[in-house]
Order: sequence, then structure tokens, then C-alpha cells
Amino acid sequence: MKITVTQEKLSKALNNVSRITINKATLPILNNVLIRVENKKVSLITTNLDMAIKDFLPVSKSEDGVITIPAKLLTEFVSNLPKGENIEISSKDTKVTIKAGKYTSTINGVAADDFPELPEINDKEAVTYKISTDEFKTSISQVIIASSNDLTRPALTGVYFNTSDDTLKVAATDGYRLAEKNLIKKIKSEVKAIVPATSLQEVLRSINDESEEIEISFNDDLVRFRLGEVEIISKLIDASFPDYQKLIPKDSNISTELNREELIRVTKLAALFSRSVGGSIICEAIAPDTFSVKSIINEFGENDSKIETTVEKSGKINLNSRFLLDALNALEESKIIFKFSDRIAPIVLRNKKNNDYTHIIMPLNS
Amino acid sequence: MKITVTQEKLSKALNNVSRITINKATLPILNNVLIRVENKKVSLITTNLDMAIKDFLPVSKSEDGVITIPAKLLTEFVSNLPKGENIEISSKDTKVTIKAGKYTSTINGVAADDFPELPEINDKEAVTYKISTDEFKTSISQVIIASSNDLTRPALTGVYFNTSDDTLKVAATDGYRLAEKNLIKKIKSEVKAIVPATSLQEVLRSINDESEEIEISFNDDLVRFRLGEVEIISKLIDASFPDYQKLIPKDSNISTELNREELIRVTKLAALFSRSVGGSIICEAIAPDTFSVKSIINEFGENDSKIETTVEKSGKINLNSRFLLDALNALEESKIIFKFSDRIAPIVLRNKKNNDYTHIIMPLNS
Repeated sequence: MKITVTQEKLSKALNNVSRITINKATLPILNNVLIRVENKKVSLITTNLDMAIKDFLPVSKSEDGVITIPAKLLTEFVSNLPKGENIEISSKDTKVTIKAGKYTSTINGVAADDFPELPEINDKEAVTYKISTDEFKTSISQVIIASSNDLTRPALTGVYFNTSDDTLKVAATDGYRLAEKNLIKKIKSEVKAIVPATSLQEVLRSINDESEEIEISFNDDLVRFRLGEVEIISKLIDASFPDYQKLIPKDSNISTELNREELIRVTKLAALFSRSVGGSIICEAIAPDTFSVKSIINEFGENDSKIETTVEKSGKINLNSRFLLDALNALEESKIIFKFSDRIAPIVLRNKKNNDYTHIIMPLNS
Repeated sequence: MKITVTQEKLSKALNNVSRITINKATLPILNNVLIRVENKKVSLITTNLDMAIKDFLPVSKSEDGVITIPAKLLTEFVSNLPKGENIEISSKDTKVTIKAGKYTSTINGVAADDFPELPEINDKEAVTYKISTDEFKTSISQVIIASSNDLTRPALTGVYFNTSDDTLKVAATDGYRLAEKNLIKKIKSEVKAIVPATSLQEVLRSINDESEEIEISFNDDLVRFRLGEVEIISKLIDASFPDYQKLIPKDSNISTELNREELIRVTKLAALFSRSVGGSIICEAIAPDTFSVKSIINEFGENDSKIETTVEKSGKINLNSRFLLDALNALEESKIIFKFSDRIAPIVLRNKKNNDYTHIIMPLNS
């Protein structure tokens, strides 16, 4: 195996792929990046068993071959070499020699035989969508916050890609809150797939200014995200996602229009005083013109802030302030709609104009 | 106690002082900021027992009194209030009411009686120096890196302010390396005092663009740093600092002039390969024209880089790469002098032109 490549290109590709390598004592090869040269095409691949990142590298000279090298060591080594330098990497058995001007290193690589590569997606059998990276990034960020870390309920640790009404929707819930966004409208092919939130976080991190579009391809057990020369392949979560549509209230008794920035501010103020009570705060609509956000009186003191707005019907509800702040930060418009009914029904938060994003939060017992 | 003050001024003062408050179960009042109003002068004070930070606050209205309030809660609360708002803080017994427009909070304060204030420095008996904040910041940063964290040797956990040859010098050592800087020349009064490195870190953090000059006052057991309206008072370390001057070699057998950036680069490259051997690297001067930096061959591989320079006499030495990088980053000029003798004598690093800063590192056994 032999390649010659500029420091900039190699450093960028290594940074793209080396992030997901893991230090696993039982499978040390997961620390490594696989470098494969085949018919003048060079690919760098890393995997953590659940997902893989692949980047194709433009090289000036190459000889076929394959080897794996400790990814973080190689990445840091290359990033410290002078920009503009041409780097030659060559392997003989498992000895990898890296030359760049007056800098020479020998790294002990590992044969690629035991590298656990994920299968490829067969494009003919896959369902494929395309979307602008900006929209994808915004939408996934809006729903991924509602996903769970609880590994005992695997379905909730992912984002559910599902189609209905000719729309590709993404949704996530941790059982206490739920977020749903219409991702692509007027679609033709259908999908139901739970993508691990951890894999989507890597996709979000891989988005840069260079790719305007992201291609998403599903088969039965894998998803592939393609961003320019970078491919992220992830296993899907093999579980059933809850029938979440029926959890979203169709109607609520009380509906208020609120300034989003103002509600963020008063929620933060109340949250400061609510730390000893698990972040619980009280939101109260007081007809005809007040929305109040209060902390529950506790050892630190108490806090009460008022927002002026039009209120037709009075009512109050206890909420987790962190969940409310997450939702408010995910909403985008300056005016939002805050709807609730009673102490059992979830509250519903939406942008005032655009209806594509829905965020619901279960109230706390008061 | 009652004050009226703008959000900006109060928020800034609270940020200045609240950093050092600590969550100590046995002395919960250390979480608090003391607010004292006396003859229309308002001071905010925090302490961690070893040091105190005091800020004087310009207020528009006030009533005398004193109270302590949980510092982080108050700081975050005030920082979340709208800029430009006038904030009124008033206390009745230990209930503290904060009003700002439509935002009202009651915080449970604690009476100031048990607040452990540090003594004041008597200016008449103190030795006082003044220096530009820029020079102070640079110099302290250059020496503080050589101080120790080892609490069993208290003298080494501080920076030694000492006078000789009409110069105020600062020095620090952890037993493996030593840094010394000439801080102020042509001084008249003498001092020998060890200032805790942790207190100096706080002084460095308190430096902002507003104060051009810092005033440093010592008495027998305290030091006070004054930056505009902010005062940092710290206990001195009651221990003897080693007679460090005799540790600095007067002469070395081998002296090379090196490009600092280039030496940083090759040291970083070698350090990457030296992690499994405690960061140990080999520096070798090879007459007539090469300076080489190598890692010791180990499980990961090996690394060798060469710098062109004039070398009169050959020799090599083993060093801790982290210590060398710390020293190189503390040096300022593009050309530096690297001097060493044998495997026992420390290496000496200096800027090529300016002789005010000296950094020595003990070699490792090879």
C-alpha cells in the first residue's frame, strides 16, 4: 500500500473519520482507521460496530493495498505536520512508514483482516431521499433533544423516520416529551426506521459548508447518509416505535400566544430557584392578560415573573423547566403558541406561523 | 440594606467576585457573597478562606446594612435579567428581595456575622509595587507553569516574589523544572513572599482591558492585588522557598540556537509517539549542522525529525516532552537558545535576545 497526498487533504479526511474510533480493550482494532487503496481509489474507514464513517481521498500517486493504523495517533501526527507538505504513506507487512520532508515516522499497523466492516447498502434495493443539509440539520436538532438515553428502551434512543400523508416525518420521545418535524413533503417511497440518536449526532457533526445536500438511503437494517465524499453508515434500531401520533392532543382548553425570548427568560429565572425541587416550575395563564412563571417556594427562596398577553381562560400547570427550555430553544419563531388543558394532558408547543414542528411535554404532578 | 443599581454594573461585579465561592458542606456561608453598604459605598466580597475578592459597586441609591446571599444563584439570576433594567435589592432580616421591572424574587440570605472576612492590609506598613497588567500577566504566566500541585511541599505550590540586584523577580519550581522572570527593575523596597499559584490564577482571570496597571502590596502574611475597583487578597504561603539561584547552571557545554516554532512542532511529533513511555523524548545535537528530536522506540512505532542549525559540539539528552513544550510555549522570541551539558545538569532555555526569562528542566535518566 502506498499513497502520496497533501497534508491538508489527508488531515481533513482523518479528522472526518477518526472521531468515532473507540478504545475497546476487547477489540483494539476499533482504535484504528482502515486505509484501502483499490484501482487508484483511496478510502479511509473507521467503525464503532454500530456505525462506520468512510471518506474517499483524492491522491496523486498510489499502489493498491490495505492496512489499519491507530487513528488518533495518525490524525494528530498528520495535523502537526506543516501545511503544504506532501505526505507519503507506505506499508510493508504491518510496518507503516510516513514521510514528509525531514519528518519520518514508523507506525506499527495491524492487518485489515480482522477489521469489522459494516455491509454496504445495495442502492437498487434501498429507499433514498435527498434534502438540503441546512434543513436536515435544523430538523434533526429539533427532534433529537427529545430522544432518550435509557438503553433498556432501545426504540426511544433513536429518531423515528416515518412516512404518512406523503410526508417523511422524524420524531423522538423519551416518554416525558415528544418532538415531531415534517422533514420532506410530497415523497413517493415509504419508510419506517429508527436511526440511533448517537449516529445522527455524528451525521450532524459531519455537516460542513461544503455539502449543500444530504442523501439518505435506507434498507431493512441499515441507513447511509452521504455528504459529498463522506459516507456514514449506521445500523437501525430493531424495535417498534410507539404509535406517537395519538399522544399529540388534538385540542387543548387553554391556548396562549407568547413571545419566545421572554418565555425563555422567565423560565430560566424560575429554573434557578427550582434546582432543589428537580427543576419543577409553575406556568399559569391568568385571564384576561397575564401569563406567570413561578418557582415553587423552597429553601433558596421564590421567584415570580409575569408576561403580558391575551388570556381567555385561566389555568395552571407544573412543568420541568429544562424540558420547557429545550422546547423553546428548538422553536424558531419570535411568537409561539403554548397550549394546555389540565394536569394530565400534555402541553403542546408550536411556532405561531409554521406548523411543521410540534413539541409536547407531559405535565408534572402538582 | 438597600441598593439600586443597573443590571450591567451588578452583573459585572457579581461575575468578578463569585468565581471563588466554594460549596463546602461544613461552612456553607462560603457559597455566599457578602454585600455591605456603608456611607453610600457598596462592596461585594467573597472568600474561600485562602483568598478573598472584593469589588466596589457604584450605586444610585443605598441604605446602610450588610447581608450574605448565595453567590451563584444571585449571579445567574441577575445575568438573566434584561440589560438596562434597574435592579433594587433590599433586605429585611435575612429575607432579600430583588425587584427589576416585572421580575420579583425573594432569596433567603444568611446574616453576615459568621462570614470569615480576611484581614485588611495596612497600607502604611505594606511594601507596594506597581506594574502594567500586560507585563504582569505575561510574566506570571511564564513562571506559574513550573509550580507544583503537590500539597505536601507547600513552598512549591506558590510563585516566589523575591528581590535581588534591585530587581523584583518571580520564580516557581516543582522540583523537575524551574522558571524565573525579572518582573520589575530598579526597585527600592525588598520582599520575599510565596504567593499561592491558585490565588495568582484568580488574579490572572480578573485582568481585563479596563485596568492598565496592577498594584501589588505585601505585608508579613498577606498580599493584595488591586485592579481598578477589584481587590484580591490572598494569604501568603508560610514556608521557605529553595535557594533556587544556585540551581541555574552558569555554563553549559553545548549551546544551540533553534527556531522556536520548529522545535515545538518536532517535539509535538515525538511526544505523540512517547505516550507509552511517559512522554520521554531524546534531543540530540549532532555537529556540525543538525538538531534531532526522537521518540524512544516503543509499541506504537518510532519518530525522528531533524532541524538544521549550527552545532559545535555533539551530545544528547532525554527530556519530558510536556515540560519542554511548556517551556517553549512560555518563551516568546522566534529564536531561542537551548543549552545542556550532560545527563545530570539541567538544560537551560532562554530567548535569544532578551535575557529576563530563564527556564530550566532536569533531564530524565536515559
